[in-house]
Parts: sequence; structure tokens; C-alpha cells
Amino acid sequence: MLNFIAIDRLIKEALLEDMPYGDITTDLLIPDESVSDAILKVKEDGILCGIDVAKRVFFLLDENIRFEKLKKDGDRIKKGEIIAKIQGNSRAILKGERLALNLIQRMSGIATMTNKYAEKIKNYKAVVTETRKTMPLLRMLDKYAVFIGGGKNHRYSLSDAVLIKDNHIKAVGSIKEAIASAKKSIPHTMKVEVEVRNIDEFKEALEAGADIIMLDHFTIDQLKEAVLLAEGRVLIEASGNVTLENIEEIAKTGVDIISVGAITHSVESLDISLDFVD
Amino acid sequence: MLNFIAIDRLIKEALLEDMPYGDITTDLLIPDESVSDAILKVKEDGILCGIDVAKRVFFLLDENIRFEKLKKDGDRIKKGEIIAKIQGNSRAILKGERLALNLIQRMSGIATMTNKYAEKIKNYKAVVTETRKTMPLLRMLDKYAVFIGGGKNHRYSLSDAVLIKDNHIKAVGSIKEAIASAKKSIPHTMKVEVEVRNIDEFKEALEAGADIIMLDHFTIDQLKEAVLLAEGRVLIEASGNVTLENIEEIAKTGVDIISVGAITHSVESLDISLDFVD
Amino acid sequence: MLNFIAIDRLIKEALLEDMPYGDITTDLLIPDESVSDAILKVKEDGILCGIDVAKRVFFLLDENIRFEKLKKDGDRIKKGEIIAKIQGNSRAILKGERLALNLIQRMSGIATMTNKYAEKIKNYKAVVTETRKTMPLLRMLDKYAVFIGGGKNHRYSLSDAVLIKDNHIKAVGSIKEAIASAKKSIPHTMKVEVEVRNIDEFKEALEAGADIIMLDHFTIDQLKEAVLLAEGRVLIEASGNVTLENIEEIAKTGVDIISVGAITHSVESLDISLDFVD
Amino acid sequence: MLNFIAIDRLIKEALLEDMPYGDITTDLLIPDESVSDAILKVKEDGILCGIDVAKRVFFLLDENIRFEKLKKDGDRIKKGEIIAKIQGNSRAILKGERLALNLIQRMSGIATMTNKYAEKIKNYKAVVTETRKTMPLLRMLDKYAVFIGGGKNHRYSLSDAVLIKDNHIKAVGSIKEAIASAKKSIPHTMKVEVEVRNIDEFKEALEAGADIIMLDHFTIDQLKEAVLLAEGRVLIEASGNVTLENIEEIAKTGVDIISVGAITHSVESLDISLDFVD
Amino acid sequence: MLNFIAIDRLIKEALLEDMPYGDITTDLLIPDESVSDAILKVKEDGILCGIDVAKRVFFLLDENIRFEKLKKDGDRIKKGEIIAKIQGNSRAILKGERLALNLIQRMSGIATMTNKYAEKIKNYKAVVTETRKTMPLLRMLDKYAVFIGGGKNHRYSLSDAVLIKDNHIKAVGSIKEAIASAKKSIPHTMKVEVEVRNIDEFKEALEAGADIIMLDHFTIDQLKEAVLLAEGRVLIEASGNVTLENIEEIAKTGVDIISVGAITHSVESLDISLDFVD
Amino acid sequence: MLNFIAIDRLIKEALLEDMPYGDITTDLLIPDESVSDAILKVKEDGILCGIDVAKRVFFLLDENIRFEKLKKDGDRIKKGEIIAKIQGNSRAILKGERLALNLIQRMSGIATMTNKYAEKIKNYKAVVTETRKTMPLLRMLDKYAVFIGGGKNHRYSLSDAVLIKDNHIKAVGSIKEAIASAKKSIPHTMKVEVEVRNIDEFKEALEAGADIIMLDHFTIDQLKEAVLLAEGRVLIEASGNVTLENIEEIAKTGVDIISVGAITHSVESLDISLDFVD
Repeated sequence: MLNFIAIDRLIKEALLEDMPYGDITTDLLIPDESVSDAILKVKEDGILCGIDVAKRVFFLLDENIRFEKLKKDGDRIKKGEIIAKIQGNSRAILKGERLALNLIQRMSGIATMTNKYAEKIKNYKAVVTETRKTMPLLRMLDKYAVFIGGGKNHRYSLSDAVLIKDNHIKAVGSIKEAIASAKKSIPHTMKVEVEVRNIDEFKEALEAGADIIMLDHFTIDQLKEAVLLAEGRVLIEASGNVTLENIEEIAKTGVDIISVGAITHSVESLDISLDFVD
Repeated sequence: MLNFIAIDRLIKEALLEDMPYGDITTDLLIPDESVSDAILKVKEDGILCGIDVAKRVFFLLDENIRFEKLKKDGDRIKKGEIIAKIQGNSRAILKGERLALNLIQRMSGIATMTNKYAEKIKNYKAVVTETRKTMPLLRMLDKYAVFIGGGKNHRYSLSDAVLIKDNHIKAVGSIKEAIASAKKSIPHTMKVEVEVRNIDEFKEALEAGADIIMLDHFTIDQLKEAVLLAEGRVLIEASGNVTLENIEEIAKTGVDIISVGAITHSVESLDISLDFVD
Repeated sequence: MLNFIAIDRLIKEALLEDMPYGDITTDLLIPDESVSDAILKVKEDGILCGIDVAKRVFFLLDENIRFEKLKKDGDRIKKGEIIAKIQGNSRAILKGERLALNLIQRMSGIATMTNKYAEKIKNYKAVVTETRKTMPLLRMLDKYAVFIGGGKNHRYSLSDAVLIKDNHIKAVGSIKEAIASAKKSIPHTMKVEVEVRNIDEFKEALEAGADIIMLDHFTIDQLKEAVLLAEGRVLIEASGNVTLENIEEIAKTGVDIISVGAITHSVESLDISLDFVD
Repeated sequence: MLNFIAIDRLIKEALLEDMPYGDITTDLLIPDESVSDAILKVKEDGILCGIDVAKRVFFLLDENIRFEKLKKDGDRIKKGEIIAKIQGNSRAILKGERLALNLIQRMSGIATMTNKYAEKIKNYKAVVTETRKTMPLLRMLDKYAVFIGGGKNHRYSLSDAVLIKDNHIKAVGSIKEAIASAKKSIPHTMKVEVEVRNIDEFKEALEAGADIIMLDHFTIDQLKEAVLLAEGRVLIEASGNVTLENIEEIAKTGVDIISVGAITHSVESLDISLDFVD
Repeated sequence: MLNFIAIDRLIKEALLEDMPYGDITTDLLIPDESVSDAILKVKEDGILCGIDVAKRVFFLLDENIRFEKLKKDGDRIKKGEIIAKIQGNSRAILKGERLALNLIQRMSGIATMTNKYAEKIKNYKAVVTETRKTMPLLRMLDKYAVFIGGGKNHRYSLSDAVLIKDNHIKAVGSIKEAIASAKKSIPHTMKVEVEVRNIDEFKEALEAGADIIMLDHFTIDQLKEAVLLAEGRVLIEASGNVTLENIEEIAKTGVDIISVGAITHSVESLDISLDFVD
Repeated sequence: MLNFIAIDRLIKEALLEDMPYGDITTDLLIPDESVSDAILKVKEDGILCGIDVAKRVFFLLDENIRFEKLKKDGDRIKKGEIIAKIQGNSRAILKGERLALNLIQRMSGIATMTNKYAEKIKNYKAVVTETRKTMPLLRMLDKYAVFIGGGKNHRYSLSDAVLIKDNHIKAVGSIKEAIASAKKSIPHTMKVEVEVRNIDEFKEALEAGADIIMLDHFTIDQLKEAVLLAEGRVLIEASGNVTLENIEEIAKTGVDIISVGAITHSVESLDISLDFVD
């Protein structure tokens, strides 16, 4: 979830990136004492995400700015709606505008797309999850947006769950040995997931006591077979080339989790604008 | 362009984000002395960008890793091609894999998309440029990728060029006064750009001696009129809702610069994989 | 496990703390070109931990220093043994000495004490684990030392496992609802642990499907009862006032995990010295 | 003493260490608007230290939290006493709890142990001081805790006093030359201390005009002899294997300073808890 | 201009530099609850610069300090005038005093000296500008002070304008090619400046379409010739050995910009003191 | 003295300040594989200081650059002399040039000016020292340059010596009490200096056992009187309006230390250039 100590750092760094020597236009043309009213306005339908992060951008530029939220994260928003009213120092509003929009547009874009996937499979037990193909330095925000959009998160980082892949298996010798080796040493609070490429590997992982098995690029028939074999003893994650077109078919197979790389690696921003109000 | 002191920081921060307490799977299952061979392989056609950044990821994890570049930034790459060979400590390769790919895929995605826009207008004087809708904390990489893709960059930040918008104009009183006010104070090395919304504003900006005028959401006819009026005395930038479909028509009007938000705010990753070689 | 990007930062910060304006004595009295031989020598029996961290201290002060490890983390070391030979720039050795010792002595102290607990229960299925009572900013090292000493780690941070305590339960209404609520939203890679204070709460948590139940300050009889009731369906963690004296009796009850605050919050350094060799 | 700009950094870093991706349990189960009352309660007798640091932890998580101090640093506290009342956002209290306790428990542990040493020698002129065996990154807090416990601080770092040890002496040639060389170059605000291993070296250091002489592992008789020889011309620091058992005997010899490594390198936390109040 | 996110960082770092372990004198002798009144007083005539930066120093030490500005940046100040009144926590005032003065004295020193140069040429079109010979880590403040003193800024950094020097020319082959090469690739918002050493180079740069030409160490006659040749098609910057004595003669030649290294590389502080008021 | 961990940070920050988005000119015009030879050349006589810092600038930009020192810190250098030869990547040399020069010119400027003061009084026991009027964030370099120039350093920061001023005295009640209070609590390694404004205060400070007494703006006769009264029992520091003209007269009075603000607060750079060699 959101850790605002980390988010403050991110915002400050991003503001330095956007104006290493200040906002020359604004500093020269707008008087320091000027105050303005502005609104955040929706330009296309979607799921709102990042409103508190946007608010924080302005707060860090001027702690006296008023930012009134009219919508909150997770709300469905419609083109034309106003999601927040902003009032205060004009310079601060102008300096924060682009960063606030860049963040809220990306986060809402992720939430909106995740929601489209989630809606497709809402009648099945499967849930949508993201991968580690998140934006470097923005993972916390990306993960949060998936959650807000109706997805469930995968592990946050390489530190909080074991995910044994092909190369780990090769190094140890077999799926069985890899799982045993990990289980022997990891925190008792941690689960072991294994990525398998065919039914034989799936069986081996199942026998070996994996908590979760990721089925990489399985066909629909293979997914069905795996679900049958599992008999509920393991969580099954389908992965690879999942699209809005095929996700329902995948969910129908009875898998538990469907991971979708595109919801974080190829994000379409949701259009939101900041307009000054006369 | 690329400042590797900044990039090193970015990579280190991103590696901490991806493994705050280490890579539990790799640390437990892969012996420290294990070495591997791997390749970076193209999964879809495009323009390569970010190969040196990817290389640096592995270098910062283990300075003894060999990373042999077979392609360089700007090269057209085809599905199936190998763009780099990596050899060295297996743990370091596994730990750096995801970050290196996340970066090179985004950068190549931007370069590839920019290139599509640039190709559409290669017979016109107009050039493609990006906006400030870049990824927070990754702007340097985003801008570089646009350049590599055949675009030209817009200003890097709020500090390196004046761009007078509606709210600045309101605060000062008129376009004329805003330009005069900026010109009086800015570095002599800096240009003044003004964003206008109609032909009247364009004329005023032209008279007032703007160096660049951004025509925001002008129709094709309005763009033509502006180009005629300008008589080459000013750089003209067309902006707003530019797509692969309409960019050629815009270029035909004779404008100098066409800015495209989507090439950085809604990026589709170019698929590249890291495969271990037996 | 150890993430050396994080450790490098820690070492550099600690060296700045120890000599904000340099090492006045050494800089004035030792010629820059002077080289020395030194050894790390054990002053009391224990388990070695932190040898690579100590090595890194000297490397960051002078990358040409030779540091030959004669022992590795996890080795039992005896008073009088030499664990490493150091050769190189005298100033760098003198400047790094105290920090290297402070780190290796603490880490070895933790590993040694953990090992004493682990040895006491080696004939039972129970394992020793630490708590979040680790040293601020040094948690990665503390956790690693527990692991090296023969313990298993608890969750690394508040981000990687759910641990429902009294106040969480009160906020939600009941153990059952708290577990359900958490399970609905957490990553599928994450487990849910609940802290309970009596057998009734234990039963409720068991019914509700907790993955792990922490029995806080249970009597030996209560622990036995809980183990019986669990029938292996849940991991049981005993917690509270565990000492070297009572840990075996606790382990005998059949619990899975025994958490010991003292192994990280009240650490006795293991005495190791750095001696110059003439 | 305490520099809160440094302490704020330390607290923020430690909170990031403890929840890189937030406090998953609290964020999911506790409503954002929930407020709580809590107290800091003493679980064993001792000297309080770190109350302002603990307060700052909560302030940095939520600046609206009320933290009412009932005791202040240096106060003797008894088991069962309440040292502070906390009121405010429940999430912030839960997120700050562990770090605040880890800090205040260590600092109070150091103050309490230092005080035991100081009490033993309160009828002598000697004072207790710590060494550089402090916790990396926490030295300011460790030193402050020693001071609060009734000790006097040794130099803060390698930058603020000269301490000539064996290896420095070897490099220069003799104690005399080393002292002369240092005195010639150091700030006039700085003192020169020399560590000696026997009476002959002591005499040489005394002759050479050291400001302070550290007697390393001297016997009680040697200490007495040194005190006699000194005739008050130099400060004498006894060092090495000082315990609660032998410190009075050492003080009786007439030395000025007695340095004790254990009060910072092997700290026993003082038990303090944070309890929610219904 | 001033970016206070960057300035806050600078101030905090500088306070850590000035008291890594606190202000021992103040912490020991001044009670925490003590409040004082103080004034900032001018000791010699000049141009004030940095008053908001000085104010921020105290704010970051104690956010309740009142700092009343009686003068603002750019004001001419006279010996004996009071420029600000400060009221609040005595410790914070004492701790911030030196840093606040060091900053405001340097900034006012730069503004004052710049103003002397600017006054000398106020009847000519030429303006004074600084070079990149600014204080490392304080460039934003140095540039701002030049601006406040009546100068215009040169480029802020290597990133915001092209300045082609001798070595760049050699690498490319000719001034003409270097300019063409730069123009082809740089942002359309950026200008190209070329440094030339004689009239022939000047002509070449003029032909090649440079936006600005820097005449390095030209004689007065050469400057005149260049101005004549330029016919207003290019901005001309005179550079090299400019002094208060010769700047008017240089301005008379008709150049546009005169860059003066000494206003930032050899700054004389303007004397301002902080006095406590009884 | 120089702590290169701190210096590396300073250099990296300063390089980011000087090229937040890279060196656009160099990156566009100089091929990455280009190598150059350059020299550091003296343009005016003085004392060299900062050669290792300059070397480090280039090393951090490209670790393969060869930097051959022909002179070392403290050497007297003459106009026309070459102090270092540099060979390697042309881009790195161009990017590091300005920062390396800015640092070495300031440091050499300080050393040279300090040396002028020191030379004036070389036949007296008095030594020159700087004040805390150093450049924020560059204090370590400023202090080092004073030392290299033949001065002795004053305290490094507020943390390493007590300096009791007027306001401290007022808060405590009297000079006597202030000194007693400080002595009771400070580290035994620390000295107590008191600033006095007249002979009466001097006497009081002398009686009270100050280690050092700073005579603020004393007349020559008052200085003489103080020296007489002191009879060698205390170090005497003369301070206030010291110039090259009056320093010898001050030294003649027999004071021990003469502090000069101007050697760090109003520094004239020593002219050194970097020239490329064909």
C-alpha cells in the first residue's frame, strides 16, 4: 500500500527533475502573492487512482494550498466530472500541475485497464494480478493502482516470496530439490511459487509441495488438466500472453490467478486535466 | 543526453526497490560461485534503445560481468535477433534481469513508436517532439529514447526554456506583455515559446517576437494560415491530439515541430527477453 | 539475505559518521604511502558472521586492499583463531578498523546467541526465529545473522506478511472477520498470521483459516493444547519470554516456531580484534 | 547532543526499512479515519532516555498526533509507570510503534547501564565514558544516552580529538615524536590523547605533553603508580575489561576517566511497551 | 530562479556539516525553552540578496520562529539598517546564525558586485552575465544573486544551451560543421553559441548561423569590427578579463552581453551581522 | 583532513548540478571513442591545493582516465608551470573541466591567501586560523586549504569544541558559571574557548579556567595587556578585522592564534586552466 515517506521522496525528486533551476516562466511572470482556483477534470471515463498522491504534490510545494477531493481512489469517474478543487498560490499550482497529472494519469490508467480485465472475469474465482514489469522507482504506485482497479497484487519484490524459475531449477537439479531447499530456509511467513512449462513439471511441483504454481504459456487444455490434477491443493497462476480477449476463457479453466504484464508495462494514461477557474 | 552519474543512482534505487532484503530465491538456490551465459533477444521488430543502460545494471551488480553489445542504440532490430551476450556471476544476472528489461523495453518502446511518427513525416520539414508528459524520475531516459527514435527533444525541464501558457498570459495582462517581460529577464541563451489557441493570439505572439509559437489544437486550415502569416520568422509547433493517422496531414501544413504526448505518456514496451544459454 | 547495494550505503554513511572531517590522528601521523599487514583474530568462541561486510568496509576505503578470508560466515570459530588477513594502505586499515569490528562483532554476537538457542532445540521440529526488535537501519544484517546462526527468519518487514494483532482485531470486530478481510485483499503470495492470547482466540483463528498463529505468552499446557487442536493444519509460533532455560520445554510441546526477541534487541558482541602484524 | 535534522533522516530511513511497501496489515484492516489512545508504559526500572526521539517518530508519520510526555530524559522510571500518552490516527500509531520502542528501549538500556556504572563510582572523581564501539548509524543516540545516564562522552568521532595508538606510534618512531607531530598541526581547540601499555610508555607520554593518557589494561597497582607520577599534570583514562565488579577499585586509584565498551556494544534493552487504551 | 525543494536540501546538508553531533555549547548552556529577539543588521552598503534563504534556515531549525522581513532581495541597503527581525527559540537562532549569514553574505556580495558592473554600463545596451565559474553545489544561489544584482544569467548548466568551444570545433572539423551538427540535433527550444578567437572565426560562425557568438579576449577594435559585421543578426558576447575599469569601454563597442567570471568566482562577502536584542 | 567518501558525494552532486540532462554540446559533437591529452596549467603564482580533488573529478567521470600529478598540495607554483597531465576520454575531460577548475582554483586561492598571512608572521609564535565563515557544503575543503596554506585549523564544527559567546554567557549568568557549566558536561577530550570583549571579561575567563580565550576586536594595547596577564596559562586568540597590513603588529603582541575571516569568506580564485594538447 502507500507509504507516504517514500512518496514524499519520489515527489521531491521528480520536482527537482522537472525544474532543476526553477520554473523560469512562472517565476518571472506570476507574482509570488498571486492566488488561483483550479480544478482537476476528467477527460475520459475510467477508475480514479492517485488522488492523494496528486494532493501531496501541491502540499509539498506549498503547505497552505487547499485541495478538496470530490472523488476518491477506486471511484468510477466520467468524462466531464470534477474530481478535485484546488485553491492557493498560483506559482505552486503551476509548478505542480504536470507532475500531479503525470502521476494521477498513469495510476488511473493502470486502475482502469486492470478493471477491464477484472470485469471480464468477475463471475469466476480467478483474480487478475500484475507482474514485476512495473515502472522502475514507481512500483509502489503501480501495485497500488492494480489493487485499486480490482486486481490483487503479486509479490512486491524479490524479497517477499520465493518464485523458482527455470534457471533456479537447473542450478539445484530438479523442481523437487529446489522446492525442498527453499522451504528449508525461508521465513515461515513466506510462500513458495514455482514456474512450470508443462504438465510433467506441474506434477513434480505439485508433489513437491509448492504453495503456488505458475503455468507459463499453457494452452487452455493444459490449464484445465492442471486444475483437475491440483484438486485444490495448490494455487494455480496462469501467465503469458493474457489479453482482454482471452482472459475469460482462461478464467473458465478454474485457475486461481491470472497475471497480466501489460497492465503495468504498457500503460495508457487516463486523460485528466488541470484547469484554472476564472 | 545520458548522464551516467544520474543513471547509476536510478539503477541503484531501482534495485533496492526490487529487492529491499535481497533476492531470496536466488540467494538460497544459486551458489555464489555459479556463472552463466545469457543473451538479450528481440521478440518483436523495432528500434533498439537503452542497451548501455541495461549493461550498466549488470555492471553495478557485479563489475566483472561481461556484456558484449551486438547492437547499439538506434539500430533497427528484428524479432529473433540477439542484441547482447552476457557472461558472469549467475546471481547477478538473475537479480539484474528484470530491471534491465524493464528499462530497455520501455526505452525501445518509445524509440520505436517515435520512429513510426518520424517515418510518416520524413518527407516534410516537420520533426516529432515529445512533451513533459514523461515518466517521473525517468525523464532523461524518455527524452533520450525519443531522440534515438528519430525525434527531436522539446525543452528538458521548466528551467531551460520559457513556455508561456494561458495562465501566465492572464497574470501579466497580454501575450505581448508576457513576451516582453520574459525577454527582459531570461538568459540570452534561452528562447521564448508561447502557446496560443487561435489565429488572433498567434498574430499577437508573432508581433511580440516569440521565438516559437505552439498552436494548441488548431485545425489544419488554421495551421496553414499560421504558417502563411509566419513567413518563416518564427518556429511553429503544432500540438494536441496528434496521431499516426493525422500527423502527415499536419506536417503538410508546413509547421516546424509536431509534439506528441502519447510517445512518452502511453508507451507500449518493446518485447525483449533475457535467455540463459546452456 | 544480503543486498550489497544497501550495505555499501550503510558502510559509507557509517564512515561519514565516524569521521565527518577525516581521521585527524591517522591523516597527520601515518604517511599516505604506508602499507601494513593486519589480521582479524577471534577473542572468544562463537559463530562467525559478517566477514563479507567487514571486507567491504576496507574495499570502500581503498579498493586495492587485499582481504583474505580464512573463515566464512557460519563457521564455528575458536578463541585465538585468525579469520582474515588484511594487507594494504595503512591509513585505510586504521580508518576502517572500528566500523568493521563493530559490524562483525554484532553480527557474530547475534549468530552465536541464536545458535545457542537453536542447539537447545535441535532434536525438535521447532525452529528459532527473531522478531522485529532489530536495530534500526541494520535489520538486513540482524536478520542475516539470525539465519547464519541457525535460526529461520520471521517476516522482513511490515510489507511482506500479515500479522494481525489485538488492535487490528478490535478495529475489524473479530478474529474471523480480520482474517477474512485480509485474505480477500492480500497478494496470493502472502500468508496471514494472527496473534492470540488464549485458547478461545486460538480456536477462532484456526477456524478462520489463519496460516500461522502466534501464541503470545501461553503456558506450556496451553501450548500443548493448541498443538493438539491444530492437528497440523496451521503453523504455531510460540512467543514471549523465551529464554535459553525454557526453550527446550517450549519446543517439546510441538510448536513449529519459537520467536526470541533478545537475540536481536539485547545483543552481546562477540569479541574479535584487528591486530597489526609487524 | 541531539541534532534533529539528523534524527529525522534516521527515522525516515528506518520507517522505510520497516515498511518498504507499507504496513499491509494495518492498511487493510484499520480505517484511515480511526483514532486511538495509547500509552508508553515501563516494564522494568531504569533511566528513561529517548522520549523526544520516540515522539518524533509519530510526528513524522502524522503531524497531528498528540504526544504528551509525562517523564523526561534522565528521569528514573519504575515498572508500571506511564511515561507518555499518545492520541491520534490509529494507523500512524501502529506503524510507528515498533521503531519508537526499538529506539527508546535501546537508549534507555544504555542510560540505565551507564547509570549503574556511574553510581558505583559516585564518591570518586572518576567519570564513566563510552568508547567508539557504538552502533553504526546510531552513534549520536548512543552517546546522548551515555550522557543522560550520568556518563561523560568520549570524542564523538575520529575528527574531533587526536588519539594516538600503537600503530601511529610505530609509524612515527616514538611517543614523543608522535605527540610533537600531532601538536604541531592540529587545531588549537583540540586535545591529544595517547594510549599506552606500560609505565615506561606512560612516562614518555607524560614528558611529551599529552593532554590525556589512556592506560590500556593496566593493573590496579600500575594505575596507582601512573596517578602518582602524573601529579595532576595530565588526565588519566583507564581502559580495558572494566566491569560493574571492578570499576570502584579502579576509581579508587585516582584516575580521571574510566571507559567502558560494554555500555554501548552489548546493550540490554530496557523493556517499555506501547499499549492501546480502550 | 529559486527552487525551495533544492534549497531545503542544501540547508539541511549544511546544518549537518556545521553540527554533525549538535551544537555542544548551545545545547549545554542555553535552556531549551529560552526565547530571544534578534536582528539582521547591515554592516556595509550594498544590494540585499538571500533574505528568503536566510529565513528558511531558521524555519528548518524551528518552524515556530518568527522572521519578519524589513527589506527584500534587490533592495539597496545601507550600513546600520535592520533587514529582518527574528524572534523565537534561542537555541535555533544560535544554531542557524552562522549558516544564514554565510549564505546571505555571499549572495549579497555577488548581487552588490554585479550591480557595480551593471551600473557602469547602464547607458549601453550590453548586459552583465556570469560564467559557469560558480560555487559547486550553490550554483542556483549564485545565478539568482547575479540576477538580483541587475545582471542577466548565462545558461544554467551544460544541459540547457549549446556552447561550442575550440575542442568541439576540432573534433568536428570546422565551426560551420559544428554548428550544423548541433542545430540538426538539439531541441528547437535551444540556442547555439560559439566561442571564437579571432575575426575570421567570427565570420565563419556568423555565416554558419550561430545564435550567439562569444568573442574570447578580443581587443576593443576587434569587438567593434565584429559588431559591425554582425549587423544585428547575432547576439555578441564579450568575454575575458573584464574588470570594473574596462567594462564601459567594452560596452561602448555595441556588444550585447559581457560575461564576468569574477562576480561568482572571487566573491567578497557583504558584511551583515545577527545581533541579539536584549 | 580529506574524507574521500564525502568528497565523492560532493563531486557527484556538483556534476549533476552542472549537467542535469548531460552536456548537450559534448555529447552531440565529440565521438564517444575520442581521446585527448590535456594539461592543468598555472596562470598566476601561488600555493597549489586540491590536486587530488581535481583528479577525483575525472576519475568519477571515467575511471580509465590517466591523471599524472606533477605537483602536489602545498607546492609553490609559478605562472606557466604544468601541474598535471591528463589523458583519456575526451568527453569526460570536457565534462569534468569546469568543476575540477572551480574546486582547485578556490582551494588554491585559499591556500595562497592563507600563506600570505602566515608569511607575515612567520617570525612570531602566532599562527593563522580560519573561522566558521566557510562555504556551506565545502567546509572540509576550505579547512584543508587553510592547513595546506600554512594555517592551523580552528574547530571543524559546532560539535567539536566549546566556544562560549556573549549570548551563552547571558543565558547562564556569568563567564565563570558558563565555563564551569560547560566543563562539567563536555567530553574530556574537548576544550573550552570563551569570547571576551574587554580586559575585565578576559580576567574573569582566565580565572574560570578557560582553555582558550578569544579577544574580539581588542586594540593592540589590550592584546598586550592580556598576554601579560595570561602568563602562558591560556591560549590567546585575536579576532576581528585582521588584515595583511595589521597582522604582524598583532602577532608582535604575543598572542597564540590570529583568526582571519576573509581567507575563507572572501576568496580570490587562483587562476589555473585546463588546456587541450594537440
